[in-house]
Amino acid sequence: MIRQSARVPGKVFLVGAGPGDPELLTIKAHRLLEQADLVLHDDLVSAGIIALTGPRSIVVNVGKRCGTKKITQAEINALMVDAARDGKQVVRLKSGDPGIFGRLNEEVGALRAANVALEVVPGVTAANAAAASLGVSLTDRDKSSRVVFVSGHQAESKGAANEPDWNSLAQENATIVVYMPGKGLGHLSRKLIAAGLAPDTCSVVVAQASTPQQEQFWTTVGGLADLDSAASPSILLIGRTLDTAAARAAIQNLSADEAFQLLTETPYERRIAS
Amino acid sequence: MIRQSARVPGKVFLVGAGPGDPELLTIKAHRLLEQADLVLHDDLVSAGIIALTGPRSIVVNVGKRCGTKKITQAEINALMVDAARDGKQVVRLKSGDPGIFGRLNEEVGALRAANVALEVVPGVTAANAAAASLGVSLTDRDKSSRVVFVSGHQAESKGAANEPDWNSLAQENATIVVYMPGKGLGHLSRKLIAAGLAPDTCSVVVAQASTPQQEQFWTTVGGLADLDSAASPSILLIGRTLDTAAARAAIQNLSADEAFQLLTETPYERRIAS
Repeated sequence: MIRQSARVPGKVFLVGAGPGDPELLTIKAHRLLEQADLVLHDDLVSAGIIALTGPRSIVVNVGKRCGTKKITQAEINALMVDAARDGKQVVRLKSGDPGIFGRLNEEVGALRAANVALEVVPGVTAANAAAASLGVSLTDRDKSSRVVFVSGHQAESKGAANEPDWNSLAQENATIVVYMPGKGLGHLSRKLIAAGLAPDTCSVVVAQASTPQQEQFWTTVGGLADLDSAASPSILLIGRTLDTAAARAAIQNLSADEAFQLLTETPYERRIAS
Repeated sequence: MIRQSARVPGKVFLVGAGPGDPELLTIKAHRLLEQADLVLHDDLVSAGIIALTGPRSIVVNVGKRCGTKKITQAEINALMVDAARDGKQVVRLKSGDPGIFGRLNEEVGALRAANVALEVVPGVTAANAAAASLGVSLTDRDKSSRVVFVSGHQAESKGAANEPDWNSLAQENATIVVYMPGKGLGHLSRKLIAAGLAPDTCSVVVAQASTPQQEQFWTTVGGLADLDSAASPSILLIGRTLDTAAARAAIQNLSADEAFQLLTETPYERRIAS
């Protein structure tokens, strides 16, 4: 192999952008964004985070969801490999943490196969941000000794062959976190109850966690069946660790305003800072 | 209640310090540390992070583990409440994310009972940092559709009445993350295999993830039984998502140096930057 020794070798950083609030980026992610030659980001990465890229950074939205043109995983891989081979510092920016439902293994595999230097930089995942915004812990010494992350694709009905093992999910002492719950809420509710989870177990859907647009809807596992679908992006938390006086009041017959007031005891800082 | 209106009200921020590397603090955690009047931190928070506190910050180690004097949870709660009532900005700094095995609910409960304003700031938890440092994803479209966090206390044998439900944990398509695995490795290995997990399932113990002192030991679920105990602080990952060529080579009969070289394909940046 012939090396051009005068050139700094390119490298791809697969970086977690955190849940949405630019202040929940890591210091390292911030530094890498400022220094990047090329930033390839997902749809869900917020404008406030994109604004932190450096003056020389070329920024490309490679999101599969809302992009006007369909970009394939192979095309994203090729963009990363080509830029790194050209000596570029590339940031592949993924919402949340790159290792949680982020298709990280596919991209790492492609980079390794191409002999491109890479580094993964973890981020704050949506589950932790959603729980923090509500002032609740995902674990609890008395109520939850286990946290389980699943994706909404699992929660949707896809025929018996593709159903997850509901019995192993419906553990009384576990907190269940569903990423991108989408339209599977009714199915999830019925399956968890059938597998033995108490219908009055506390549950909350959090949309756009950590952003000024954050909203939360408190209910029970039984009550989830009455919801059509969750807004996107959102996350669903289920478990007895959520069961505080404020949560119960919200689930019961309070007005929306009263419930909101109770539930924002520990609101997003920007709402109350001014 | 009589309020002193001229005084800024105190507040307690329960903040995740991330896995160890100061660059894996969030921007928000960094800002709050600089501004804090009082910082109460756990033992596991590194000196590099403590160094980021502001010049006027009073810093107290309230760790229960290595402290020369035993401090109770009630005493920590009282320190937070008293300082906030005195108008102080308090940062309660917890390693990783405060909502993952961080006894957050106890402290939030005490602050709410005392009517003290609070906010929880999420952080990068050790599981995500450990996986990132190895260049692996905790989820995988083909191999792992579920991630389960448990604590090492669960993994230790505590008599039949306190055993976790091993069958629900030993899912072939799940990634299992054990926080603070400690001395329960042999017990964990035997129980997971008895519950049906394949003995050759990939497994890695990561000590001091994200720091220059990071070490990783690759093995299988069966091989865990040969380990006495994991160093502290460390984290244990189990699952087919870890199963790369490099991992398999490390598990087989390579020398320590060869294995290390293979496994540090994507090393901690500071090791290779210079």
